[in-house]
Amino acid sequence: MKNEFTFDELLNRVNTVKVAEGNERVRALSQRIITDLFKTIDEFKVTPDEFWSAINWLNQLGQLGQTGLITAGLGFDRLLDILADEADQKAGLVGGTPRAIEGPLYVAGAPSSKYEARLDDGKMAGETYVMEGVVRGLDGQPLANASLDAWHANEHGMYSHFDPSQAEYNLRRNITTDEQGRYRFRSVIPPGYAIPPTGPVAELFAALGRHGNRPAHIHFLVSAEGKRTLTTQVNIPGDSFLDDDFAFATRDGLVVTLEKVASPAGYESLGISGPFTRIPFDFVLQNAVQADESKHLSRVERALGA
Amino acid sequence: MKNEFTFDELLNRVNTVKVAEGNERVRALSQRIITDLFKTIDEFKVTPDEFWSAINWLNQLGQLGQTGLITAGLGFDRLLDILADEADQKAGLVGGTPRAIEGPLYVAGAPSSKYEARLDDGKMAGETYVMEGVVRGLDGQPLANASLDAWHANEHGMYSHFDPSQAEYNLRRNITTDEQGRYRFRSVIPPGYAIPPTGPVAELFAALGRHGNRPAHIHFLVSAEGKRTLTTQVNIPGDSFLDDDFAFATRDGLVVTLEKVASPAGYESLGISGPFTRIPFDFVLQNAVQADESKHLSRVERALGA
Repeated sequence: MKNEFTFDELLNRVNTVKVAEGNERVRALSQRIITDLFKTIDEFKVTPDEFWSAINWLNQLGQLGQTGLITAGLGFDRLLDILADEADQKAGLVGGTPRAIEGPLYVAGAPSSKYEARLDDGKMAGETYVMEGVVRGLDGQPLANASLDAWHANEHGMYSHFDPSQAEYNLRRNITTDEQGRYRFRSVIPPGYAIPPTGPVAELFAALGRHGNRPAHIHFLVSAEGKRTLTTQVNIPGDSFLDDDFAFATRDGLVVTLEKVASPAGYESLGISGPFTRIPFDFVLQNAVQADESKHLSRVERALGA
Repeated sequence: MKNEFTFDELLNRVNTVKVAEGNERVRALSQRIITDLFKTIDEFKVTPDEFWSAINWLNQLGQLGQTGLITAGLGFDRLLDILADEADQKAGLVGGTPRAIEGPLYVAGAPSSKYEARLDDGKMAGETYVMEGVVRGLDGQPLANASLDAWHANEHGMYSHFDPSQAEYNLRRNITTDEQGRYRFRSVIPPGYAIPPTGPVAELFAALGRHGNRPAHIHFLVSAEGKRTLTTQVNIPGDSFLDDDFAFATRDGLVVTLEKVASPAGYESLGISGPFTRIPFDFVLQNAVQADESKHLSRVERALGA
C-alpha cells in the first residue's frame, strides 16, 4: 500500500520527500503554501472543475504576462510596501518621500537626458504639465546626477511597450539631475488606468464584484549615489478613484498640487508656448544602508540579481 | 488617512471591497487564499526580491504552459483523486477501475478507429506490446461502442504535440470498442517521463531537492453511454520510480502484468510478425449518476464547460 494515501499521508509525503539538499527557504515556504492550499481545497470541497478552471486561468495569466496586475489588485504590492515601512520604522529608517508600488508596467532603457525632458510625442490630447523639483537627501542637500525614471499612461490609460499603438518609450524618460539636483519634464496629464476589459484579470475582478480602476498617477524610479533607490508614484488630485484605487496604492503625501501658470517664460526650452500646469515636487531619498540599495533597478531586475 | 493601512486594515479592505454582486464562491475562496498568503508573507518575512522572483517564476510557468506540471509535482492532482475517492466512498460509489491523474499532456482529437489501432509510427525504438481487454460495467457486462483514448511518451519520454519532433498525434489514438466491448492496440513500451531539464519547473524541483521523474505509464480516458467517464493510467512493472513517482500518481491495482507472446497468430491485423509483449487489461466503469458524467472530456474541457 505504498501508493495509496490519505489526505494527511499525501500532504506529508509532498512536504518531506527530498533526494538532494535543495534550498531550505524555498522548501519551508513551499511547505507552508502547499499545506494552506491543501487545507483550502479540502475544507471548501473544491471540485476538479473549479481547480482546473483556476489552473487554466493561471496559465492564461502567465501567457498574457498579467500576473503583476493580479498581485496589485489583490493588495500584495501594497502589502510589501507596508511591511517594508514597518521594517524601516523599527530600524529607524524614517523620513523622505514615501515609497509606492512600482506596478507591472516599468520598462528599462528609456531615452535619457540631463535636467529636462519631454515625455509625450505631441500626439496626446489633454492638459500640458511641467513637473519639476529637486532630488534631495534627508539632510536637504540637493543630489546632483541623480537618475529619475518617469512613466505614465496615455489618454486611453495605456502604457507604451504594452500598447503596440504607441511609439517605443512614449511617455517614458530618464532624467539625470543637474548640479543643483534639479529635474523637470513636460508631458500631458494622464487619466486613470483600468485593467484590460477582457481576459483573466477582468474575469476575476468581475467574479469578485470589484472594479479595476486606478486613479491618475505618474510613476517614478529615483536613485542617487549612496542613497536608497526610491520607487514611488504621485497622484493627480481630483480623480474619483483617488481613495478607491483597485491596487490600494494611493498614499497620503503623494497627491500633488496643480498650479496654473499663465506664461511660458523660463520654460521655452521645453517647447512651452502658452499657459500650462505646473506640478512642483521634490524627491527626498534616504541614505543607503547597503551599497546595492543604490542600484537603479526595477523590482524584477533586482529580484533576478541584475 | 484613508489610504494609509496596517496589515490588518489592508487585508480587510482587500477581502471586503465590493461594488457589484460578483460570485460568492470565488469571493470566499479568494478571501481564504489571499489571507493565507498575506500571513505567510508576514510570518516568513518574505522579501520583495523573493516575492517578485516568485511572480516572475509564475509568469514563466504560464508562458510555457507548465502550470499543470507543478500541480502534479506538488501533489494537487493526486489530492483531487483522493478527495474524489473519499466522496465516492461516502456516496457508495465503489468498485471499478481506480481513477488516476490525467496529467497536463492530453490532446483531444486523436485519430479514431474501431476495436484496434497502432499508436506508434514505426520509428520508436523498444519493445513492441499489444494492450488488450474489455471495457465493462460494474455488473461485468461488456460495453460496446465505449470510447477509449490512449496516449503515452516516446523513447525520450516526450509527448507528441508538446514535442515538435514528433508527428501530430504520434502515440495518441482513440478506439471504439466492438460489439463484445473489446479494444486492443499496438505500440512500443514507453520509458518513464521526466520534467524538462531546464526552466521554471526544473528550478523549483532543484530548490526543493526533489527529482522530477515519473515511472513508465500509459494514459487513458474511457467513456461509455450511461457510465462515468474514467481518467486513469497504468504503470509498466519494474520501473525504479514506480513507488517514487514525482506526481505521487502510481496506484495499487494499476500496475499491469507483461506476458511474453512467442507467436503473432491472431495479431496479424496489427502488423505483428514476431514475438511481442501482451498487456491484458479490462477497464471497469461505474454507472453515471448524472448524465454529464458520461461526456468524453479532459479535465480542462470539462472545467470550461465544453
